[in-house]
Amino acid sequence: MDDVRAARDRIAPYMAPSPLYAYPLLDRAVGHDVRLFVKHENFNPTNSFKVRNALSFMSALPFTLREKGVVAATRGNHGLGVAYASRVFGCRATICVPLGNNPDKNDGVRALGARLIEEGRDYDESILVAARIVDEEGATLVHSTNNAHVLAGAATLSLEMFEQAPDLDAVVIAVGGGSQAVGAMTVARSLAPEVKVYAVQAAGAPATHDSWHAGAPIGRERADTFADGLATRSAYDMTFPALREGLAGFITVTDAEIAEAIRILLRTTHSLAEGAGAGGLAGVIKLAPQLAGQRVGIVLSGSNIDETTLKRILSREL
Amino acid sequence: MDDVRAARDRIAPYMAPSPLYAYPLLDRAVGHDVRLFVKHENFNPTNSFKVRNALSFMSALPFTLREKGVVAATRGNHGLGVAYASRVFGCRATICVPLGNNPDKNDGVRALGARLIEEGRDYDESILVAARIVDEEGATLVHSTNNAHVLAGAATLSLEMFEQAPDLDAVVIAVGGGSQAVGAMTVARSLAPEVKVYAVQAAGAPATHDSWHAGAPIGRERADTFADGLATRSAYDMTFPALREGLAGFITVTDAEIAEAIRILLRTTHSLAEGAGAGGLAGVIKLAPQLAGQRVGIVLSGSNIDETTLKRILSREL
Repeated sequence: MDDVRAARDRIAPYMAPSPLYAYPLLDRAVGHDVRLFVKHENFNPTNSFKVRNALSFMSALPFTLREKGVVAATRGNHGLGVAYASRVFGCRATICVPLGNNPDKNDGVRALGARLIEEGRDYDESILVAARIVDEEGATLVHSTNNAHVLAGAATLSLEMFEQAPDLDAVVIAVGGGSQAVGAMTVARSLAPEVKVYAVQAAGAPATHDSWHAGAPIGRERADTFADGLATRSAYDMTFPALREGLAGFITVTDAEIAEAIRILLRTTHSLAEGAGAGGLAGVIKLAPQLAGQRVGIVLSGSNIDETTLKRILSREL
Repeated sequence: MDDVRAARDRIAPYMAPSPLYAYPLLDRAVGHDVRLFVKHENFNPTNSFKVRNALSFMSALPFTLREKGVVAATRGNHGLGVAYASRVFGCRATICVPLGNNPDKNDGVRALGARLIEEGRDYDESILVAARIVDEEGATLVHSTNNAHVLAGAATLSLEMFEQAPDLDAVVIAVGGGSQAVGAMTVARSLAPEVKVYAVQAAGAPATHDSWHAGAPIGRERADTFADGLATRSAYDMTFPALREGLAGFITVTDAEIAEAIRILLRTTHSLAEGAGAGGLAGVIKLAPQLAGQRVGIVLSGSNIDETTLKRILSREL
């Protein structure tokens, strides 16, 4: 928790707290007298919570290392965050993405002045490319999850949320690597120990969900979901033990349920969400009977959806 | 300007300043080395700048009048703002909309606890309904434009923008009633008199544009644009003289150009805009050759677009 407060102090000069809003129309869409509070991480620079992680990391990086640059493997938001934070701190950034990665996100990374390397079949292979850059150039790796400063950065959103709505009963958090959920549990334990933290994954990418229910890490061959922020194939070393211990529940939602949550957010909050950003709401809708009458926090974690996917969602093709 | 500062102090407890962001990808889409700064009024409560106007009005309303309630005529965002501010101040609100008004916006107004009256063929007839409520119930009218507190509220966004980006060369503002443009000129005159303020209207609703070029108010029979925030049929008494005097230029943009600006904002800022919210960008694209190399502020004034319209825009039907 001290790390989280320290991270908040370090990133404060570079970004404002994001707002937490209630929407009567959204509550009505969910039903069961659930009262929702939406944490608008889509309003951050780079349109996602990941910028917190990168700013937390970069602001803690010793100047001597900053000079040699940083490198990250990503499919999108983490890379945008690292590119943005590197620009803020005048540091060279290399972002490694798999071949065929979303061209919108690639353009965004390049426009922020970072070097982009497209190589490898998937995220796991991009990690190997990043490791090569570390070896060859002496750059520092910014892992998307397995790093204490990154996790502290992600937790700052929960610190803000619990201060903005001090009487929450539960939070429902979508899990890719798990940094947000671990952050929520860390902050809840300190500020509001009675708050229950529920986790949600995509049904097509359920590695962490399956691991949680099995009580041990289980890898999966594939991660099939349009919610690319949730498309992970294994539980992560630095988050799984905490998830194992502290979650009140862990469910999955289908891509159709995530797409419906995006449409509901559009209609009731007039705010754009990418798949991962609507995962929390999709989870709340599924959990609504057991959350009846409660005050529930969700994180609209990002809005980096491409036009083609959004069009498919509005046409009910997803 | 003292009114604007006073309005800012009054509304500060109820909403945070909205962020002003630069987007390298957006600049590239516009070209001509224009450097854009986007004021994100879509991140406000009720997703539009109009909440400033209503909070400014309500916070200045004497308590004795507050008890009798307020009434507003609107097609959407002004009504959402008044409903929201009335809820904050524990005041009864009546919102008058024309028959056939956007059902999403009607639902939003009702969900905020306001009474909704659907009557009359268009905005001008809703104004008459509102006047009747004033007579019958002693409620106070909150006009969307012709009120000093409303205008001061709208100007607070420019005050923030000029402080956030102190070295702008120009701002390009979409005009419905003109409160934003007058606010920008008021603040510019005081803080940055060299900044040029350009105005934009929809080609299908050019009453104020035509009046400006003619040098005298001209009413129009119709206001045909999907950008309902810009669909006005006449210049407004309290804004036209200031527009007449202080604008550097006044252009129109077609609905197709506004739709294209919405798509560009979606792709490069991953942020949702309604028609009026994209009017500034559409204007910048048209003015780009003469704004070459300049630092230009635009206001993403709101994101209250309905799903059907958004779908048509993504399908290139608009």
